[in-house]
Amino acid sequence: MERPHNFSAGPCILPLEVFEKASQSVIDLDGSGLSILEISHRSSAFVEVIEKARSLALEQLNLNNKGYKALFMQGGASMQFLMTAYNLLQKKAGYLDTGTWSANAIKEARNFGEIEVIASSKDSNYTYIPKNYTIPEGLDYLHCTSNNTIFGTQMKSFPHLKETPLVCDMSSDIFSRNIDFSQFDLIYAGAQKNMGPAGATLIVVKEEILGKVSRNIPSMMNYELFIKKKSMFNTPPVFSVYVSMLTLEWLARNGGVSAMEKKNQAKADLIYSEIDRNSLFEGFTAKEDRSMMNATFTLKNKVLTPKFDELWKSANINGLNGHRSVGGYRASMYNALSIESVKVLVDVMKHFEKTI
Amino acid sequence: MERPHNFSAGPCILPLEVFEKASQSVIDLDGSGLSILEISHRSSAFVEVIEKARSLALEQLNLNNKGYKALFMQGGASMQFLMTAYNLLQKKAGYLDTGTWSANAIKEARNFGEIEVIASSKDSNYTYIPKNYTIPEGLDYLHCTSNNTIFGTQMKSFPHLKETPLVCDMSSDIFSRNIDFSQFDLIYAGAQKNMGPAGATLIVVKEEILGKVSRNIPSMMNYELFIKKKSMFNTPPVFSVYVSMLTLEWLARNGGVSAMEKKNQAKADLIYSEIDRNSLFEGFTAKEDRSMMNATFTLKNKVLTPKFDELWKSANINGLNGHRSVGGYRASMYNALSIESVKVLVDVMKHFEKTI
Repeated sequence: MERPHNFSAGPCILPLEVFEKASQSVIDLDGSGLSILEISHRSSAFVEVIEKARSLALEQLNLNNKGYKALFMQGGASMQFLMTAYNLLQKKAGYLDTGTWSANAIKEARNFGEIEVIASSKDSNYTYIPKNYTIPEGLDYLHCTSNNTIFGTQMKSFPHLKETPLVCDMSSDIFSRNIDFSQFDLIYAGAQKNMGPAGATLIVVKEEILGKVSRNIPSMMNYELFIKKKSMFNTPPVFSVYVSMLTLEWLARNGGVSAMEKKNQAKADLIYSEIDRNSLFEGFTAKEDRSMMNATFTLKNKVLTPKFDELWKSANINGLNGHRSVGGYRASMYNALSIESVKVLVDVMKHFEKTI
Repeated sequence: MERPHNFSAGPCILPLEVFEKASQSVIDLDGSGLSILEISHRSSAFVEVIEKARSLALEQLNLNNKGYKALFMQGGASMQFLMTAYNLLQKKAGYLDTGTWSANAIKEARNFGEIEVIASSKDSNYTYIPKNYTIPEGLDYLHCTSNNTIFGTQMKSFPHLKETPLVCDMSSDIFSRNIDFSQFDLIYAGAQKNMGPAGATLIVVKEEILGKVSRNIPSMMNYELFIKKKSMFNTPPVFSVYVSMLTLEWLARNGGVSAMEKKNQAKADLIYSEIDRNSLFEGFTAKEDRSMMNATFTLKNKVLTPKFDELWKSANINGLNGHRSVGGYRASMYNALSIESVKVLVDVMKHFEKTI
């Protein structure tokens, strides 16, 4: 059977060659006779995997030799909402409120100190990225979310701060575009979009921002301890790290973030052109803030929903339904999604307009 | 190539049929054309997986309809050291100190309240399980570790407490023996021994013990919230939960914990008899506290180490080295390890004695 065109928002499509290699390694890792699932995390085979994954992550972000360390931890971005505050929040931090995940990050950080919401687009159900806000001085850090998966908006530029560390939840667009990653002091990302399967979280942190809070940080929350232990304080999520390494190798072989950006831009141009052209559809978000990863749109006439749903499903398209808090449709177009899949969707939209 | 006899302490051997099914599902889950790694955690396919895993876990522990809930979380037992204290420790808890993991649990819990070490075998490098201790009244809970992977000791009975909840780290022997699991109020276990691959943690908790501390519990630490969200507050570690479900299905098909206990007892009898009989070897631990899961032993004459190491490695045995804090050897014999593998090891030991 032909593989579905998988527009799922995450967990999501990964390269087929990654699935194939991972599948093989579940039976026999590199001719060892052992499954990747049954080897010790202290074995030389796995130490090599996690070290390669850590160094590939830094390389692909162009952050080698710039004072950063890469870690693989567990719990997804939701655990990072808590962990960043545990490690960095002494008194007061600033947050940009650009979507559900930003709002959740704010909620969790409030367990640890004062949070000032610097700007918010909540009043419009997060259809745009706030701009022209003023950042007060003396914050412990400023937190932002680079891409808002649920709403389909994406930050195109980031605030410049002289003294204040910039923390970014990059879960849904890391490794998808070529930006200056050194403008961030801490980046975190759940693996399950452009990097790997659910169950691993990448943290890239500039070491000099750590060690400045006075509270006692539990071991499993402590970035400095995980750096010291080379991301192996306890048993890491072996398989998720392994598949992340395979995906990062695929990324490196395929031109890195610059090549991905070009491909992702072409996919985004294709779908957004159709959303704007097609008389039946409209987008949810401000055009200048549209996400390259997640295109959200809806039928102008909701009565047509069952017919359109039938049509895209019969075209072997998967995962197109919008998030329950927005409705409509969401085409998630992560690195591994081919432009051919987007063309299939666009053809379905065109066909629907003609035949309805 | 023949699969190695894998005595690894964890991650460790799982049933071959689980590896085979998991490998297939990384390419194509049940004929869907999609990888288990690319489906949404909110898809009906995955909701079915996690619900089945949760109910199988309760069933296999004979804890259905007894007020317990099963959860899959992330971070391993080390995260539970922190999470149990976050959820249960108001003023003072008691801990049995029977090994490295107990000691780590004590250390992390001290971030949240007073900890009384009720008994400890640290003075002898944890070669035995303390007995005949007195438990003070008024503790928020008592914490114990059922099996000490590193040292090779195992609790054969557990303290009876009328008013005090009993919390047990069962990471390395859950599902391996038939005990009355209802004597515990909270059981937690990293998946990577008898249940699945690294990256998932099982928590089985009696609901009535929750909601009694006054502190604000962050979402990712909150058992009650995870119960309410059916273990899907955020993206769970999809693949690790899936493979855990496959392993629990295998367990159910193969007679459950009673059948495993019988098999595990036979394996343990075999190796310990040889350790006691063979003039070259001696065990590390008190005989009455020997673990059915992890048999620790050493050469009386350390000079023979390189020769013995060469011999077992040439017999296609993997993962026999002891933990660095103990030295010597450790034969971990989890549910999926066949008695044939133990026979191979015993034969190697016999052969070594004859030929040296």
